[in-house]
Amino acid sequence: MSDDYSKVLLDESEMPTQWYNVIPDLPAPPPPPLHPGTLEPIGPDDLAPLFPMALILQEVSGDSYIDIPGEVLDVYRLWRPSPLLRARRLEQELDTPAKIFLKYEGVSPAGSHKPNTAVPQAYYNAQEGVTRLTTETGAGQWGSALAFATAQYGLECEVWQVRASYDQKPYRRTMMEVWGARVHPSPSDLTESGRAVLAAEPSSPGSLGIAISEAVEQAAQREDTRYALGSVLNHVLLHQTIIGEEALLQLAKVGETPDVLVGCTGGGSNFGGLSFPFLREKLAGRMDPVIRCVEPASCPSLTRGEYRYDFGDTGQLTPLVKMHTLGHSFIPDPIHAGGLRYHGMSPLVSHLYELGLVEAESIHQNECFAAALRFARTEGILPAPEPTHAIAAAVREALRCKESGEEKVILTALCGHGHLDLAAYEKYLAGELVDYDYPEEKIAEAMANVPVLA
Amino acid sequence: MSDDYSKVLLDESEMPTQWYNVIPDLPAPPPPPLHPGTLEPIGPDDLAPLFPMALILQEVSGDSYIDIPGEVLDVYRLWRPSPLLRARRLEQELDTPAKIFLKYEGVSPAGSHKPNTAVPQAYYNAQEGVTRLTTETGAGQWGSALAFATAQYGLECEVWQVRASYDQKPYRRTMMEVWGARVHPSPSDLTESGRAVLAAEPSSPGSLGIAISEAVEQAAQREDTRYALGSVLNHVLLHQTIIGEEALLQLAKVGETPDVLVGCTGGGSNFGGLSFPFLREKLAGRMDPVIRCVEPASCPSLTRGEYRYDFGDTGQLTPLVKMHTLGHSFIPDPIHAGGLRYHGMSPLVSHLYELGLVEAESIHQNECFAAALRFARTEGILPAPEPTHAIAAAVREALRCKESGEEKVILTALCGHGHLDLAAYEKYLAGELVDYDYPEEKIAEAMANVPVLA
Repeated sequence: MSDDYSKVLLDESEMPTQWYNVIPDLPAPPPPPLHPGTLEPIGPDDLAPLFPMALILQEVSGDSYIDIPGEVLDVYRLWRPSPLLRARRLEQELDTPAKIFLKYEGVSPAGSHKPNTAVPQAYYNAQEGVTRLTTETGAGQWGSALAFATAQYGLECEVWQVRASYDQKPYRRTMMEVWGARVHPSPSDLTESGRAVLAAEPSSPGSLGIAISEAVEQAAQREDTRYALGSVLNHVLLHQTIIGEEALLQLAKVGETPDVLVGCTGGGSNFGGLSFPFLREKLAGRMDPVIRCVEPASCPSLTRGEYRYDFGDTGQLTPLVKMHTLGHSFIPDPIHAGGLRYHGMSPLVSHLYELGLVEAESIHQNECFAAALRFARTEGILPAPEPTHAIAAAVREALRCKESGEEKVILTALCGHGHLDLAAYEKYLAGELVDYDYPEEKIAEAMANVPVLA
Repeated sequence: MSDDYSKVLLDESEMPTQWYNVIPDLPAPPPPPLHPGTLEPIGPDDLAPLFPMALILQEVSGDSYIDIPGEVLDVYRLWRPSPLLRARRLEQELDTPAKIFLKYEGVSPAGSHKPNTAVPQAYYNAQEGVTRLTTETGAGQWGSALAFATAQYGLECEVWQVRASYDQKPYRRTMMEVWGARVHPSPSDLTESGRAVLAAEPSSPGSLGIAISEAVEQAAQREDTRYALGSVLNHVLLHQTIIGEEALLQLAKVGETPDVLVGCTGGGSNFGGLSFPFLREKLAGRMDPVIRCVEPASCPSLTRGEYRYDFGDTGQLTPLVKMHTLGHSFIPDPIHAGGLRYHGMSPLVSHLYELGLVEAESIHQNECFAAALRFARTEGILPAPEPTHAIAAAVREALRCKESGEEKVILTALCGHGHLDLAAYEKYLAGELVDYDYPEEKIAEAMANVPVLA
């Protein structure tokens, strides 16, 4: 390959055919989820009302690799393998000796990395006779991914979208409807969980935690219906590892290994998907990248949350999981990165953070959009608000390299485009984007509601 | 290459490095543009106030191939080569023996094929010391392409956007602003042309013809400013031939040649870009595809217009060009395919139609959106309103193959994604999309204003 490449592509025949499970390679397993009634570790049967058995078995699998079904590979091939971009024009603009690589997931039909797990989730549900899936969505990236995926396998799809995003991004709803889904703003009056929130606060902007409660409640009530989660869980992060596996192959093609890997974290699926294969290489001693999470200052679960057993949702319907949490009743300020507005962090990413295998930092949204504008004007692509955090972190790192003169290789994931997020850019350009204070008081209030286990 | 591929990719090293000029290969040259005062063929000097000399020379070039500058190739590589998609899932859904290929240009930063010419236009202007470009835009695809391109070479960019699209698609404006452009709704009170239209009709929805007048007027007034056109002209179609050249290479990789090539036509640049290299092969006897234009029923310049000398703009500021026209004062109904709302057709495409080398048909927008929905639910991608016409034409052809049993190879261009056009899908899904009658009376009225030459 010549040295002046702008992106590294893989042929369809080079696409990985297995997902990677990082758990068997860790020095200790993550703590198990607990049944909220008995406080005993939950078993597969406890999850059966919500998920098909194939996904439950992946959730607890001890296998290092899991084959991707052929019917899933067929759909992946509509857009995968995704390109690895080398941001040469941004490097020049920053005048940095660093090399910046971005794994670009915005080429998927829904415009983000989310279809990587939406497609297998829809597939396994269809295989087990499920005919209807419910889910929540924040910015709408996950909801549209599931809408697209269910259309591929002939399932119905019903989405509860966080009210703040539903109002900010009306066209995401239309996109979901184009693929055949039904969309409700959350909190809604269609569920007990939603009605309870509306009774307390009729103008609630909603949160992922509330929307999860609504979707879970609906799924638990009907035999033909299951629930699909777009992040947080082990099987979701597992499906996303195709991102990192491809990136490994692509970097190898151009003879590079990363010195620093940064990824934005909301529930952790984009970060886990990119980083776990590199963590495998690091644990095996084949490379030694610093691996760093980047989260919004308004929702700093890793950097300011506590590592505690807590509920995954506001309505306390999910199992208790050990994770970095701001408290399941925490409602983040309405930043534009709706996909990062979650009170907790994936238990697996939380576990890695506790083990000292990954770092974390938080960034305010104006710095993120400033970096995104710089990126758009040099590299062309308009990032979604979520990966503006990843780009801001990469820019920070590249500017440190400018100071130190180090020629580091920086890898991140540009996990989605911002074509449906232009209202956020409009506000940024008008100087109207708010940097909220660190939510210390709100965190303290919400943490008081986290259950204290014996 | 295996036989179950889903898309055909080219490596950056395989990207064509020359544009193809079809004119020397035609049995007769197209009639020249005329000076509106003298009615004599215009020369390069007449165009110098509007365009840099490099583009003027390309406009009248007799060379079959023109080298693409390295600085343009560098920017092309941000997204090119673009993928050639095989729509297997749509074929299955249609139950057709036909093979449907789509050259997908939505992977560009602006989301369409328009940057293919915006980038070289910005480059050549910058090379000749121009510091500011003006242009018009319909749906916003062209304006955003030029905004992106001018950002790459440090030029200012000012865009007049047709009022109907400006109102229907507010986020296109923000996209242009992210890349640093200034955007005005057209008709505006910033130009004489705009003020004249507003005086006659204060609530005018605008048209490409009016917006061209405004942008041309501004460019002609300042020495540091030139004008950029997104379609119609020979040099624009020339730059777009990289689409067809890549598609030829990609089809060769999988051993296919097209039996039918369909492309949507507004000003003709997407159609010309895809079809001219295939027309070269056809004229040389190496293949024999039917080549067909598809236009909106509301703006049927080829199928219902007259082949006459007419102005390119409403304000009568441009040279007279011989083309299929509905009359320069024709204002199309506000269909959502804003990029196809132009009263004329590229003189070069018009000439080919007169020579019998290409066919044409027109389609109403509800049929187009129905085809687009079918496409989105099988293949994932949401098409822009303009290429819904191409997809509808491909579906018609594929269904004819189902009847006849013919295994035809159908090639078309999916020239842009519809992420900024979801308001149109919203209306379609709500059953509110209007199929306007064929505009016979409006055409007759506008044709009465077309100059009669001696």
